[in-house]
Amino acid sequence: MADKRIYIFDTTLRDGEQVPGCKLITSQKVEIAQRLEALGVDVIEAGFPISSPGDFQSVVDIAKAIKIPTVCGLTRAVKKDIEVAADALTYAKNPRIHTGIGTSESHIKYKLRSTQEEILERAVWAVKYAKSFVEDVEFYAEDAGRTDNIFLAKILEAVLKAGATVLNIPDTTGYCLPDEYGAKIKFLQENVKGIDKAIISTHCHNDLGLATANSIAGIQNGARQIECTINGIGERAGNTSLEEVVMIMRQHPYLNFTNNINTRQLNPISQLVSERMGMPVQPNKAIVGANAFAHSSGIHQDGVIKKRETYEIIDPLEVGVDQSKIVLTARSGRAAIAYRAKNIGFELSKLQLDKVYKSFLQVADGKKEVSDEDLTEIIEKVNVVSTEYSK
Amino acid sequence: MADKRIYIFDTTLRDGEQVPGCKLITSQKVEIAQRLEALGVDVIEAGFPISSPGDFQSVVDIAKAIKIPTVCGLTRAVKKDIEVAADALTYAKNPRIHTGIGTSESHIKYKLRSTQEEILERAVWAVKYAKSFVEDVEFYAEDAGRTDNIFLAKILEAVLKAGATVLNIPDTTGYCLPDEYGAKIKFLQENVKGIDKAIISTHCHNDLGLATANSIAGIQNGARQIECTINGIGERAGNTSLEEVVMIMRQHPYLNFTNNINTRQLNPISQLVSERMGMPVQPNKAIVGANAFAHSSGIHQDGVIKKRETYEIIDPLEVGVDQSKIVLTARSGRAAIAYRAKNIGFELSKLQLDKVYKSFLQVADGKKEVSDEDLTEIIEKVNVVSTEYSK
Repeated sequence: MADKRIYIFDTTLRDGEQVPGCKLITSQKVEIAQRLEALGVDVIEAGFPISSPGDFQSVVDIAKAIKIPTVCGLTRAVKKDIEVAADALTYAKNPRIHTGIGTSESHIKYKLRSTQEEILERAVWAVKYAKSFVEDVEFYAEDAGRTDNIFLAKILEAVLKAGATVLNIPDTTGYCLPDEYGAKIKFLQENVKGIDKAIISTHCHNDLGLATANSIAGIQNGARQIECTINGIGERAGNTSLEEVVMIMRQHPYLNFTNNINTRQLNPISQLVSERMGMPVQPNKAIVGANAFAHSSGIHQDGVIKKRETYEIIDPLEVGVDQSKIVLTARSGRAAIAYRAKNIGFELSKLQLDKVYKSFLQVADGKKEVSDEDLTEIIEKVNVVSTEYSK
Repeated sequence: MADKRIYIFDTTLRDGEQVPGCKLITSQKVEIAQRLEALGVDVIEAGFPISSPGDFQSVVDIAKAIKIPTVCGLTRAVKKDIEVAADALTYAKNPRIHTGIGTSESHIKYKLRSTQEEILERAVWAVKYAKSFVEDVEFYAEDAGRTDNIFLAKILEAVLKAGATVLNIPDTTGYCLPDEYGAKIKFLQENVKGIDKAIISTHCHNDLGLATANSIAGIQNGARQIECTINGIGERAGNTSLEEVVMIMRQHPYLNFTNNINTRQLNPISQLVSERMGMPVQPNKAIVGANAFAHSSGIHQDGVIKKRETYEIIDPLEVGVDQSKIVLTARSGRAAIAYRAKNIGFELSKLQLDKVYKSFLQVADGKKEVSDEDLTEIIEKVNVVSTEYSK
């Protein structure tokens, strides 16, 4: 089977940047956009130009700075929004307007106080209007995750006819389970006339911890673009993590998905975004967390020392991390102690190791982590001579 | 269809506590165990008694303190491990020994330097030996995620005959996709003789961000116990998040799964574990992150102010959070400003709101978040009189 090319649509600077505390100034946004270009993303959603003069300017400056990826601006299905977005994208080599409207019962009834007929009409109008400015128009059916599939198919067919090039199916509230979301994409594939001419896009939120699984279910059922952010930042519990979906494709080559990401940039860009936005990444975050390649239990350390693949499916170098970490704690065993002792110049015999281990556990039970200094002290106390001196 | 009761096996104090930096002293472990009991978990994995004298003592003290949940101790398939665990569990009302061994090719060949035949023999021996101390014996097939299903079924059938009450199918390296993991559980359900007498358990790691989705795929295919931790802590990228799987069951009642968790305790216990372990929870963590119920884009704020369910699938009160947050940033719109202004005593007319909005955007473009103080200043500058004074 031929590989399917999956397009990576990064929305760190739009869905990510709109988060409490994440606001950036224009020069920082341009810096991150350039790093996203170097990472190899296909689309950069640069902002929501109507939202503020600062955001407008950021989209202008990013459009000027970026050469290869498509630069995209968000709008509501509102005349002024679309005009301002088109204006902001004037200098983009590959401009895209991303317009759309809420399609779920909850959005139509309570937020928009409208009807399905009116919404469909506004959607078609917005796509046509956006098309009068740019060729590449992406339509989002907001809250598609909770939208009735029949109406969703109907509105998508209509915007396709109006010229939409990409159809975004957001699970705006992070509600769907992977099999439901996959089934929705499959239904649309099978029931929207002309859908093979467009790219179907996923945009999954993480309110129940399922954004990554839902995005993968999406591409397994026919979607060809994933909207995601660095470190999974975004409204509320955030968006799909770029680093997770990219590494899933890489670790599961039999799925036959390819993308353009240079994975060695994943950790560096994660750190950049976290620092610039002041948005911490938890140590147990997949791929980019500080502990993602750290091993502390004795069983695991023993395994990794014998052969890395026993407990690690990803070579840390592949994602820009120098090496796995063998951290000494009260759960560590003899193998890890011998390994770390050797690193700092002590070649322990079995008898010496037994002595050191006993003394090590007493120290380790009282603290979170045993440092190389602590270990040296322990080893010297039990009278083991450094190999450096004993040679 | 009758509801299926899912058992929540918490391993915060074992898989979580073994993480770099997470080490706790005994009194802290007892405190957390008691909070886990109040939360309603079914099983508390209290530690790995052979690993250190401190961990042994913690299991002893937790066993004494806990009344309702099963208290479980981890062992390798090693005589001394099992004896020490049994000893540590002496005072437990409902003791369980959790023993097992690596079953994947990688584990058998490189870590254990053994053969399938020898591993099967050791597994059966370990379960029988554990059974000589306690009635309730859980067997783990380490790295089951990468173990050949035929061998996995064979070893599980053998340990079942030896008396195992629970069969744990760990995706130790976080490698599986949800459909693969679900298919594995289904295969075992259909191919292990006598498996209906045991409880199948999931234990999924999060290296690719799929632990939660895999655990749900597991129970959808016949597993009845989920091993998980508060905040998803655990080796490397961590374990399945307890709060995520519990809220998925609650938000998707048509799945017909029930559990015993008091969800209002989810946020308080998340904060306790994070503080005691010094392990930060990222703001965009599902359910328990600081931003999980925060809204900052204008579109979202407008929707939530009109009707909370537009952008929130979970009522924050249900998980012990006081209320949704409407955070003012440069992406906020008029609806949010009017809402927050009203909260601080200013009832703005449409004309006043237009003036305030313009001035607000200038301030907001320069900072991450606009506080109530900032907003008061803005409003006063454009000469709007507080409703408190104008009454």
